[in-house]
Amino acid sequence: MFNFEISAHCPHTKGRCGCFHTPHGPVQTPRFMPVGTLATVKGISTEQLARTGAQMVLSNTYHLHLQPGEQVVAEAGGLHRFMGWDGPMLTDSGGFQVFSLGKLNKIDERGVVFRNPRDGRTIDMTPEHATNIQMSLGADVAMAFDQCPPYPATENDVKDACRRTHAWLERCVNAHTRTDQALFGIVQGGCFPHLRRESARAVAAFDLPGIAIGGVSVGEPTDDMHRIVRDIGPLLPQDRPRYLMGIGTLREMAVAVANGIDLFDCVLPTRLGRHGTALVGGERWNLRNARFRNDHTPLDPTCSCLACTSHSRAYIHHLIRSDELLGLTLLSLHNITHLVRFTNAMAQAIQEGCFSEDFAPWQEDSPAHHTW
Amino acid sequence: MFNFEISAHCPHTKGRCGCFHTPHGPVQTPRFMPVGTLATVKGISTEQLARTGAQMVLSNTYHLHLQPGEQVVAEAGGLHRFMGWDGPMLTDSGGFQVFSLGKLNKIDERGVVFRNPRDGRTIDMTPEHATNIQMSLGADVAMAFDQCPPYPATENDVKDACRRTHAWLERCVNAHTRTDQALFGIVQGGCFPHLRRESARAVAAFDLPGIAIGGVSVGEPTDDMHRIVRDIGPLLPQDRPRYLMGIGTLREMAVAVANGIDLFDCVLPTRLGRHGTALVGGERWNLRNARFRNDHTPLDPTCSCLACTSHSRAYIHHLIRSDELLGLTLLSLHNITHLVRFTNAMAQAIQEGCFSEDFAPWQEDSPAHHTW
Repeated sequence: MFNFEISAHCPHTKGRCGCFHTPHGPVQTPRFMPVGTLATVKGISTEQLARTGAQMVLSNTYHLHLQPGEQVVAEAGGLHRFMGWDGPMLTDSGGFQVFSLGKLNKIDERGVVFRNPRDGRTIDMTPEHATNIQMSLGADVAMAFDQCPPYPATENDVKDACRRTHAWLERCVNAHTRTDQALFGIVQGGCFPHLRRESARAVAAFDLPGIAIGGVSVGEPTDDMHRIVRDIGPLLPQDRPRYLMGIGTLREMAVAVANGIDLFDCVLPTRLGRHGTALVGGERWNLRNARFRNDHTPLDPTCSCLACTSHSRAYIHHLIRSDELLGLTLLSLHNITHLVRFTNAMAQAIQEGCFSEDFAPWQEDSPAHHTW
Repeated sequence: MFNFEISAHCPHTKGRCGCFHTPHGPVQTPRFMPVGTLATVKGISTEQLARTGAQMVLSNTYHLHLQPGEQVVAEAGGLHRFMGWDGPMLTDSGGFQVFSLGKLNKIDERGVVFRNPRDGRTIDMTPEHATNIQMSLGADVAMAFDQCPPYPATENDVKDACRRTHAWLERCVNAHTRTDQALFGIVQGGCFPHLRRESARAVAAFDLPGIAIGGVSVGEPTDDMHRIVRDIGPLLPQDRPRYLMGIGTLREMAVAVANGIDLFDCVLPTRLGRHGTALVGGERWNLRNARFRNDHTPLDPTCSCLACTSHSRAYIHHLIRSDELLGLTLLSLHNITHLVRFTNAMAQAIQEGCFSEDFAPWQEDSPAHHTW
C-alpha cells in the first residue's frame, strides 16, 4: 500500500512520471487533484467528476469538522461512502484554513484555539485532534497539521512557524494509527531559502509515504514560488510522491513538474467556472462576453468533457447570461478536465522523452498562446 | 408523424395509456414532462435528465424569445441541437407568461403589446408572431397563442378571452407551416362550465394533433380544477393526446388521468428541489431538517434516481445545509424522477387493469400516506 512507482524520468529536467498506489486505486502522476471542500466538488456529481479524468479528490478537514462534523462522516462509513466517491481521496489538515479563515484566538506549542465563524463556538485544534479528525474522515491520504505563516512574515515568525510545524509533525506521526491511510508531512519556510531547506530536511527525516510543499500561493511573488520549487523539489525524497499545495495554474504546474513535483490541487477551476470563466489553451475566456452569443462551435474542440462534446459556446454563453446553474456545472467540469489533461499531457511527454521540449514554453512568462 | 396510439383503457374510469409519436421519438402516456424554461431543466444536464425517465421536455417561448432570442436557437439548428436534447420537446406559446409576467401595455384582437422586464423594450406579440417564434425554435410540439384570463375573472372577461383564444387559434393554424411540428390548441373558459364546454368544442373543431386544457393552476380552488377536468376531459377528441397544462401534483394527476388526460408539466419538482424539498411517497420532506443529519439511508429506497442510488439522506442534508449546488441538482433529479415514475405507474396500472383500484386513494383529499 502507498507504493510509489516511477515509470519514467525526463532526461533534461527533474520531471518524472509514475503511479501512487492507494487503497482506493492508483493515482497516475503528475496529476491535478480537484478540490471538494465540503465532500462535494462544487456543482459536480461524482459520476461527472470521474469522467474529468481526475483520480484523487481533495477535501477539507476544517470545513468538514464544522459541517457536518467528522462523526457523521464516520457513521456513514467514511468520506468515500459519504460522498459516493470510490476513488482515491486526500484531506488537508485544516492548518491552512485555521490560519487563513478562522478567527484565531491563541496559538502556542500545544496547538491553536480559534472561533468557528459559523456559530461563534471556540474550537481547540491540536496536531492530535487534526489527525484524529482525519482518521475519522478516512481519506487515503491525511496531511500533517502545520502552521502556515502569512505572507509577508518576518524571518523570526517563519522560523517559529517552522519549528512548530516540525514539532507538530512528530505529534501527528505519533497520533496517526490507521494503516490504510498515508500521512504526508508538509514543508514550510516562507520565502527564506535556508528555512525552506532546513524544513525540507526536517520533514524528509520522518520517512513518510509522501511529502508536500505548503505555504505557497499565499500571496508571495510568482518568482519566489518558482524559486522555492526549484530549490526544494530536488531536496525531497526521490522515491516518494511530492505534492505542491494550492497550485493549479498551467505555468506553475509546468515549472513544478520540471522540478520533480507530482501532485497539485487548486480551487481555481471550479471557482472560475462559477464566475463564468473557461480555461482554453493558456487563456481565460469570460463566457458572458457577447462575442460568444452566436458562436455555435464547441468551447474547446480538443477537449472531451461534457461541455465541449455536447454543447456550444453560444449555449454556455446563454446559460451564463441567464444565471442557469448548468452553466456553472459545465464550466467547472471543463476547467477541471482542462487541468487534468494538462498534467496528463506532461506525464505522456515525460514518458515519450519530449517533456523539456514540449513544455518549456509553458514555463515562460506568457504561455497564453501555446497549445498542447 | 404525430400518431397517437392508445394501447389500453381503464374499464372503470376514462383513463387510458398510449404512445404519442414525434419526430424525436415516442412519448408513452400518461406522462409527466419536466420544464426546461430557458432550454435547460434547472441544474440538470441532459444526460442526467434522460435517466429520470422523462421523454418529452418543455421549454418556454416567452423566455427564449427574450434570451437568447429564437434566431440564435435557429442558427444552432433548433432547440434540440441548442440544448443537446435529442428527445421529444414541446414549447408553450408564451400566452400564459405574457399575461402573468410581462408588463402588459395593450391587448386587442390583433394581439398583445407588452414591455420586456429585462430591458424595458416594447414587444408586439401576435398569434402569427408566437407561431413563427415556435417554428424557429423547432420543438416537436408548438402550442397555440391563447389568452389566459387571471383568476378570479368576471364571466364577461372570460367570455372575451375565449372568443379571442378561438380567433387566435385560427390564425395560429393558418400561420403554422412546419410539417415536422405539431400544433396543439388550448381550451380556456376559466371556472365557468358552459364557457369551458363551448371552448372545448370550438378548439376540438380544428382537428389538431393534440389538445390542451389551459387556464388551470392559476389560483382557482382545487375542487374547481377537478370539476373542469371531469367536465372537459371527456369532451376532447378521444384519439388525440390531451395535455393538462401546469399541473404536476400527484393527486391532480391521478384525478386527471382518471378523466382521460395524457400529459402534464409543472415547474414544481425543480422549484421544490432548489428549495431543499424532496417528494417522497405523497409527502414533501424538507431535507434541511435536523432529523436527516444522521440518517444514512437512501432518500427513497424505491427510487432509482442518482440521489437515491448513490447518496444518503444525511449527505443530501449536509449539501443543503452547506448551500452546495449538488444538493439542488440531486433533489431536482429525484423530484422529476418521482413524478415521471408516478405517471409511469399509472400507465402500467391501466395496462394491467388495476388503475381504478390502485389509484383511487390518490384521488382523495390526503394521499400523503399512500405508497405505490
